[in-house]
Amino acid sequence: MAVTHQGPKGTRDFYPDTMAVRRHIEGAWRQASVDCGFDEVEGPTYEHLSLYTAKSGPGIVNELFSFRRAGGDDDYALRPEFTPTLARMVAAKAGSLPMPVKWFAIPVHFRAERQQRGRLREFVQWNVDLMGVEGAAADAEVIGCAVLAMERLGLKPTDVRVRLSHRGAVGAALAAAGVSTEKAGEAFELLDRRDKLEAAEFEKRAAALGLTADARKRFETIAASKLPVSADAAALGACLGVGETALAGAVELADRLRAMDLAPWCEWDFGIVRGLAYYTGTVFEVHESSGGERAVAGGGRYDGLVELFGGPKMPAIGFGMGDVVLGLVLGDRGLLPKDALALLPRPDAYLLSDGSEAAERELPRVLMAMRRAGLHARSNWKATRNIGKLLGDAGKARARFAVILGAEMAEGAVTVKDLDGGSQVKVPLADVVRHIAEAPRNAGT
Amino acid sequence: MAVTHQGPKGTRDFYPDTMAVRRHIEGAWRQASVDCGFDEVEGPTYEHLSLYTAKSGPGIVNELFSFRRAGGDDDYALRPEFTPTLARMVAAKAGSLPMPVKWFAIPVHFRAERQQRGRLREFVQWNVDLMGVEGAAADAEVIGCAVLAMERLGLKPTDVRVRLSHRGAVGAALAAAGVSTEKAGEAFELLDRRDKLEAAEFEKRAAALGLTADARKRFETIAASKLPVSADAAALGACLGVGETALAGAVELADRLRAMDLAPWCEWDFGIVRGLAYYTGTVFEVHESSGGERAVAGGGRYDGLVELFGGPKMPAIGFGMGDVVLGLVLGDRGLLPKDALALLPRPDAYLLSDGSEAAERELPRVLMAMRRAGLHARSNWKATRNIGKLLGDAGKARARFAVILGAEMAEGAVTVKDLDGGSQVKVPLADVVRHIAEAPRNAGT
Repeated sequence: MAVTHQGPKGTRDFYPDTMAVRRHIEGAWRQASVDCGFDEVEGPTYEHLSLYTAKSGPGIVNELFSFRRAGGDDDYALRPEFTPTLARMVAAKAGSLPMPVKWFAIPVHFRAERQQRGRLREFVQWNVDLMGVEGAAADAEVIGCAVLAMERLGLKPTDVRVRLSHRGAVGAALAAAGVSTEKAGEAFELLDRRDKLEAAEFEKRAAALGLTADARKRFETIAASKLPVSADAAALGACLGVGETALAGAVELADRLRAMDLAPWCEWDFGIVRGLAYYTGTVFEVHESSGGERAVAGGGRYDGLVELFGGPKMPAIGFGMGDVVLGLVLGDRGLLPKDALALLPRPDAYLLSDGSEAAERELPRVLMAMRRAGLHARSNWKATRNIGKLLGDAGKARARFAVILGAEMAEGAVTVKDLDGGSQVKVPLADVVRHIAEAPRNAGT
Repeated sequence: MAVTHQGPKGTRDFYPDTMAVRRHIEGAWRQASVDCGFDEVEGPTYEHLSLYTAKSGPGIVNELFSFRRAGGDDDYALRPEFTPTLARMVAAKAGSLPMPVKWFAIPVHFRAERQQRGRLREFVQWNVDLMGVEGAAADAEVIGCAVLAMERLGLKPTDVRVRLSHRGAVGAALAAAGVSTEKAGEAFELLDRRDKLEAAEFEKRAAALGLTADARKRFETIAASKLPVSADAAALGACLGVGETALAGAVELADRLRAMDLAPWCEWDFGIVRGLAYYTGTVFEVHESSGGERAVAGGGRYDGLVELFGGPKMPAIGFGMGDVVLGLVLGDRGLLPKDALALLPRPDAYLLSDGSEAAERELPRVLMAMRRAGLHARSNWKATRNIGKLLGDAGKARARFAVILGAEMAEGAVTVKDLDGGSQVKVPLADVVRHIAEAPRNAGT
């Protein structure tokens, strides 16, 4: 009967320590979202398979966990991303939703791929979207929300970089380099995949795009261009080989990012494309600054997508940030405590009984009364009634106070020991809940 | 291209209002768990199919969403419950886990069944488990945790009842009624299904168990027995037709529940069986008091389960509480606000600009600075610069303060309007973040 079972490949078991890290990250995401005025939403964990093929074509099926219910006739898939669900939800209620739509979600997602560093089959992803508003203010609002969460997790502009590009500006640059309008899509794809292609293959594809040797060099210059967001339009224009008209969107975004004091986090990187064909303006990725990890986050403007899912024409900008790479970066930068349990709330009180009849009788009542008063209260589960040993357990549990139900019970009192300061006082049993509830909390708790 | 998509049957789209209710419920669950000293855990959303058939036999497959990855050879299933994952996780680390194991989880679960009132294909379930401790103190600890969450959601003992039974006591009662040891399992099953069977079918099965007409009457008496937890051993014994030895576990539990002031919520109901064969002692269900809904929660002691999953012999008690029936009960009892958005945190500040150059320039900076200071700050996305209209929007957003960047910008100041009290003051621009951060919060926020 008794066989050992293992979890599926590429999934995780979250024990209390790893769960504490997950909640720490999710907490920063959620609070940053709320503080920036986004409302939380959620959708089903699986959707009709057709929702994904509608956006990405049948080719996506191999990357999905798709399934059919035994005896049913509908094909489903575990969600690989949140955007199709979001677009479906907005389309269904577009007439009645207050505008703009500012939503965030923290769902789990699934991709049927080989497990690698920074990539799992099941992962948590923070999604932030602002719909119904065009322009740089909206773009900067979602980028600011991403930065706010990273700041609160302890990251600095030297740790991670927000790499920005703009499809409009880059499209104009590609045109100026000789790419025809009908080849623009292929040119973006080549820009996106240039690091993964052999030099000869790159040359072959560039030639197929109709690029001359000179234009190919120009193409590579664009891909390698990095500029601070403080760069003015002239500098951007010189770098991309385009005039100021094509740069209006990029310049407006840079102005807004500077106004919000986000410039130290951001830089132009015109090699950033974001493979997905539906992006229309600003695109960005967040990377660990040395570039050694996969992207921490990615997003951009997708003004046509809600319409594709049956909704009205609606401008939109959003991003996704996964927990896996972010967790690696936080760990590498020393931003997670060695003992992750230190991220969890400390018990306010740890109740100990010396085993006397009165103590054993009163302990369960006091324990529940403390919890009813909003306190985090624990007690001992061991058979021992050795107060010294039990105090050691209270310390290991990181409790603020030990409440000892001992000899003083004869006079209707208990001993309350401050486990940080070491002092102890006698408190009437009837007052002990209030005593703990009103004790000032240390800064560290 | 543009077709309208719908979510899968029996799943939910959580818009901001329904998500606020979900977070309200999950928040009460999580805080009650933490205050009772449980640590949060999570597992994969899907498991190997064999994990579920190991516990429940191949019959369970029809109730599962099972699937195989295209091109893969492993069978998986979306988790229908958390206990197998929990048992697998405990078994894998049993040697190194600090004892007792006190864990909670708030996962989503999936059942491939027809959607009905109180029953969906995807639902959220709070799981609380205490492993490594035998006896009534552990049983009462998890029951107390369930009650604590319900109290905090506003429920009272008149709204919901914790219906308790004890397999040991009922087993002895069945034996006393003439059920042989080897028929005990079938007798529990008959007890569990008695309300779903026709009278004739019940009679037939009872006879097959070897019950005389007299014993069948006894059987029905047991099933219909309800007693307050204040009942003494003599009253319990008279009701079940057994002596005090068989009642030791039940009496100990009742004593502990009274000691923790949980008795007003609880009652003995010896018709409660919990179908699952693996329960070994205390079993309980939480029901809406009129009995009109499905169970809000159910659980019990399952001392043999961890061993079944390859772990050591380990006593355990736990329960699951779903969000669907609980949400219906809270709604019916008027314990959810009419506008669920009122459950969400209020914005601290709503920033308005009169459209002047200085106001438009400073607004993004102040907005981001407030958020960096931990404030929930919003601003206007409409084109209008009519301060009266914008103040209306600030009020609709339930903001505590409106911050008006208007004519006073010329002297480096803004107007801060208290949207609850109505008073307004002029504040230097450089001080406005601190001004809002230090403003006392009303009790209602």
